[in-house]
Parts: sequence; structure tokens; C-alpha cells
Amino acid sequence: MATQGQVITCKAAVAYEPNKPLVIEDVQVAPPQAGEVRIKILYTALCHTDAYTWSGKDPEGLFPCILGHEAAGIVESVGEGVTEVQPGDHVIPCYQAECRECKFCKSGKTNLCGKVRSATGVGVMMNDRKSRFSVNGKPIYHFMGTSTFSQYTVVHDVSVAKIDPNAPLEKVCLLGCGVPTGLGAVWNTAKVEPGSNVAIFGLGTVGLAVAEGAKTAGASRIIGIDIDSKKYETAKKFGVNEFVNPKDHNKPIQEVIVELTDGGVDYSFECIGNVSVMRAALECCHKGWGTSVIVGVAASGQEISTRPFQLVTGRVWKGTAFGGFKSRTQVPWLVEKYMKNVRKQTFKRFLI
Amino acid sequence: MATQGQVITCKAAVAYEPNKPLVIEDVQVAPPQAGEVRIKILYTALCHTDAYTWSGKDPEGLFPCILGHEAAGIVESVGEGVTEVQPGDHVIPCYQAECRECKFCKSGKTNLCGKVRSATGVGVMMNDRKSRFSVNGKPIYHFMGTSTFSQYTVVHDVSVAKIDPNAPLEKVCLLGCGVPTGLGAVWNTAKVEPGSNVAIFGLGTVGLAVAEGAKTAGASRIIGIDIDSKKYETAKKFGVNEFVNPKDHNKPIQEVIVELTDGGVDYSFECIGNVSVMRAALECCHKGWGTSVIVGVAASGQEISTRPFQLVTGRVWKGTAFGGFKSRTQVPWLVEKYMKNVRKQTFKRFLI
Repeated sequence: MATQGQVITCKAAVAYEPNKPLVIEDVQVAPPQAGEVRIKILYTALCHTDAYTWSGKDPEGLFPCILGHEAAGIVESVGEGVTEVQPGDHVIPCYQAECRECKFCKSGKTNLCGKVRSATGVGVMMNDRKSRFSVNGKPIYHFMGTSTFSQYTVVHDVSVAKIDPNAPLEKVCLLGCGVPTGLGAVWNTAKVEPGSNVAIFGLGTVGLAVAEGAKTAGASRIIGIDIDSKKYETAKKFGVNEFVNPKDHNKPIQEVIVELTDGGVDYSFECIGNVSVMRAALECCHKGWGTSVIVGVAASGQEISTRPFQLVTGRVWKGTAFGGFKSRTQVPWLVEKYMKNVRKQTFKRFLI
Repeated sequence: MATQGQVITCKAAVAYEPNKPLVIEDVQVAPPQAGEVRIKILYTALCHTDAYTWSGKDPEGLFPCILGHEAAGIVESVGEGVTEVQPGDHVIPCYQAECRECKFCKSGKTNLCGKVRSATGVGVMMNDRKSRFSVNGKPIYHFMGTSTFSQYTVVHDVSVAKIDPNAPLEKVCLLGCGVPTGLGAVWNTAKVEPGSNVAIFGLGTVGLAVAEGAKTAGASRIIGIDIDSKKYETAKKFGVNEFVNPKDHNKPIQEVIVELTDGGVDYSFECIGNVSVMRAALECCHKGWGTSVIVGVAASGQEISTRPFQLVTGRVWKGTAFGGFKSRTQVPWLVEKYMKNVRKQTFKRFLI
């Protein structure tokens, strides 16, 4: 491409200060260095984590920066040594890298690759510990190794999932964060079995993705819990088949769920980021085997607590990040799964 | 036996009041009713849980009572409908019942049988919700469904494990609580794999049993942590091959262990019952997969806490009761395992 090796000037939404409106700016995006990929971002979504860092409450938040981490685009150019993607490839940038070489990747037990974390955690690229973004020569920090609120971004090659070029990017961009986080919490972290009872705290995007994951896994009761009863209608489409609004009850929500399910649920998921709800989610689990998965991200410094008796009597407390999915390997698989469903539905439409 | 169907008067150590010396008394032990077994206790050990209830800090503690739950004896007589044991059988009374019929037993996921809990939790027998112990007509509460600090005790049939009559009762009585709790925490709850790094907090009986379980499971590094360095010598015999005394360090013990193990251990076990140590045990686990098992029993009302980030980044918090062993089924198996080792050693002695 004509832009290869050149600085690209494009529009980006820059967060100059916490809690101040993002500014649409002309930013300079430097060419990718060794092991890096420059991506033309075509679609990006907004996740609560962007808003959290923007709010200033994230102690790791660095300003000025370009937020955004749930997106899809096309590779514009690649740096030296990059072999797995090339210009023109359709990709999803992944805030959770997958190098396939570090002890995390090799463990077979986690998706939490550590290869580029020391750089992405402080808003720079590994190669020279600098940013590829600038405005009038002043560097702008990267965010989560993705910075997708920009028409072009530069990411590490270990953070790029190459996907089916036929996939609609405006839809599959959601496979960059929220949807895999929810699906994976069910499939990878909790490993919900057919016939299980499931409680989902918080029916936002992640909660709905948990519901869909639970339905696919064959859960029989899928109880949605939210303080906004209007959410139940939408949630039904994703598999939620019972609804509880904590505001309708005078006792702690965990007691309500335990009574409703004759002892508690087999699996619960906290999809809000509220530490009190995390406790309720654990304590509404069935004695002997109930497993609670923390999916939501709590504000910095907050702590979860419970009586150890809850665990000694068989409940398990876990958490998940990106649903336990190995990003480069499994995001393309999720896109494939989505496309198969799209094709099936198209086929059905032909039949009807 | 001549005593069958009769009240037996025998010696027992009665706890009349919290924190006051036990009194060796003549107690009357009523004959077993339907579904009950009267056992002549030959050996009993003392566990910290006895001391905890005796201290008065256990809100479920009822007085006067007969404590004790780690013992071995011989069946004296059985009540109506009892088919699985008969007078003369060598048995270990089990505070954790196994009825094989309730939803817990049938789940295949837990050992926490619920059949007689409603009675054992309040110091009586299921059949008539009364005690079988009395002193001069005044009832004395049962404890944990076992009350082994008595020459004769009455327990529910679902709480009796029939064992090899050749097993030395003065040794296998320990298979009634502490040893299975430690072994099972490793084998059943954590499922430690060969080559794992393990941290054990507290090198009492339970901690030593965890060490032995970890050694048998093929763990490579078995790190004992105790504020009494003298315990290391004994602990070596059980498999502990590294020792850390938190008093020798100025920083939190979890940081010490994380540094010592290049990121944390694969499995940790809290064998004390101290909620601060439970937190340290979780936080010294490796990001991505480290699993911490709470084995110790904390005082009532105390809570564990941590940052949810610890779980979101892949650590798992669990607990165990009686090591997850199904008592009636697996205590005899543990006795068998012990006897095989005894026979092997005897055989070796013949060879030498």
C-alpha cells in the first residue's frame, strides 16, 4: 500500500484528561516496527472498561491516551518479522495477547499470555518502549495494547486474530471483548453442564453473552438478576428464562435465589463489577458444588469477602478474563461459529 | 452380647461448660434405636475442632456434651433396620455421614451428605430428636454425631465406616478426621499433578497429611510454612522439602513465596484456620492457574477477603471438608491403603 512505511495522519478520539470529553483529533500513527501490525480500524464498540479508565478511577490509566479495545479492521502494513498476517487481512485486535511461547501460553491452563504485558500495561510498544501515536510531535499513550478509537492503530503481532474475510466486521467486532468474555466464562471457566441451574447477575452485554453460553451448554434454568426489570424482555432472546429484581425483595438476593432453587444454583456469574454482588453470587451457589465466576471488573482497591465456611462447604470461587479464550487461536473460531449460524439462517430463509 | 438392648453405664469425659475442665463421669448410654449403632470406643484422638467447641467460641456448641470425633472401635449392638454393620465389626465413626440416597450423595460432586445433619447439628439423634447419653437422668448432648470421648457411643448407621478387622485401631483412628482431611485436600479437592509446586501453611497434623498427599501425588517442591521452625525436621519425613518461617521475613509471606517460586505456587493449602493466612495462601498462588484450598476451620464470624483481581487473573479459591472423601465408602479404602503399606514394610523386614 502507498502508506506502508509512512506516518499516517488520521482521525482519533483522544482522551487528554480523565473524565473530560474525548477530542476528535488528527493524530500521527507511526509505521509498525518489528513484530508490530498497523490496522485500519473500521468498527469499534465501547466497553465499560474504556469508560472506567476514562473516568480516572483506574490507577493504571495514563493520559493522554487513545482508548478502545473492541474492534475489527483490516491490516494496513506489518513490521519486520511479522509472518502470520499481511496487508489486507481482516483482523480483530485482541487486548489479551497470545504468543504461544511464554510459560502462560505453554501451560495449557490459562489464556493470560504475559509476552507484551510489561509494555501494554504502561501504554507503549515493546520494541522501543515508545508510543506509535502522536499529535504535533507529542506522544499519546496506547491503551490495552489496542487503542481502537483511531482510524489506524498499531498493535503487537501477538495481539492480532486473523478472521474470515467474509465476516461482517460491524458485527464481529464484538468478539474482541464482551461476547467472548461471557461465552467463555460459561464454556471455559465454569464448564456448565447440561441441566444445570445458572444465575446471572447483571444483564448487560456480558450478562447476555453468559446467558447465550449457558443456553448453548444446555442449562435448564437460567435466572437473570438485574435492578432494571425492563431488561428481561431482551434477555429472554438470549436464553434467560427466569428473572429476579433484587428491589422486589426485602431480604438479601442470595437468600432469594437459594430459596428459589432449593438450595442454590450450580453456577453463578457476576457481570457487573460490584464487590457486594460478587459476594451474593458466591453465596447463592449450592452447597457442595456451586461455582461462582467473577466476570465483572471491580474498581481498584475494592475487595471481595465472605465467610470461609462458604468455601469449606464446597463452593468454588473463580474469575475469568476474556472468558479464558486464547485470543489468536480462538477468536477466529468464534467468528467461524458465528458465520456458520449466519449461513444456516440464510439457508433457512431460502427454504421458507 | 449381654449388653444388647440394655442401657450401658460407662466412663465418659463430659464437657459441662465451655472452657471448664472435662469431667470423667459415669454416663448412661441408651441402646441404639432404628438406624443407629452403638460402638465401644477403644481409641480416640483429640482434634482442634473439639478444643474449639470446648472453648465456647463455637456458636453451635451445646453444653453439656460429650466431645470427640476422631476414633475407632467395635460395634456393640445395632438398632432395627441396620444391615451394613453387626456386633463385633471394627469401625471408624465418621462425623461426615454418607447415606448414598440424598441429593448430595447422589450428585457425584460432593461428600457433604445431608441426611442426618439436622440432628447432628443440634446434638441429638434423628429418630426421636433426643440424646442417647445421660447422667443421672439428665441428657447430655451428642457432638458432631460421634461423641467419641466416651467408652460407648451411639451414632447413625450412615456415619459408620466398617474397616479391616486386622487394622490397628490405635493408629487408624486418625483416619476419622485429620489424615483424610489433608490427603483428600490434595487428591480430591486440589487434584495436584506430578511436578507441581505446593505451599502448605501450618505444619500440624493436617498440614503434614497434606504434605504426604502432595508427595504421593508427585509434587516436586513442597514448601512448608510455619512460625515454629522446629516443625521442619518432622515435616521432612512427610515430604516437605523447603521451609519458610514468616517471622524471618519483613514482607508479607505471599510475596516471599511468589519470589521463591518465580511467580507463585500451583497449589496452596491453609491448614490453620486463620483468615489472614487464608488470604496469603490464595495470593501466593501463580497467576493463571494457582489453586488455593482452605482446609483449616476459622472461628465463627470471621471473613476472608482479597481483591477480585486475584480471581479474575486465574486463581481459584476452594475449600474442603473431610478432604472430600465419601466417609463410609472411602475410609475403609484408606485403611486398606495403610494396611498394604504396613504389610509391605513387614515383608521388607523379612527380606533384610
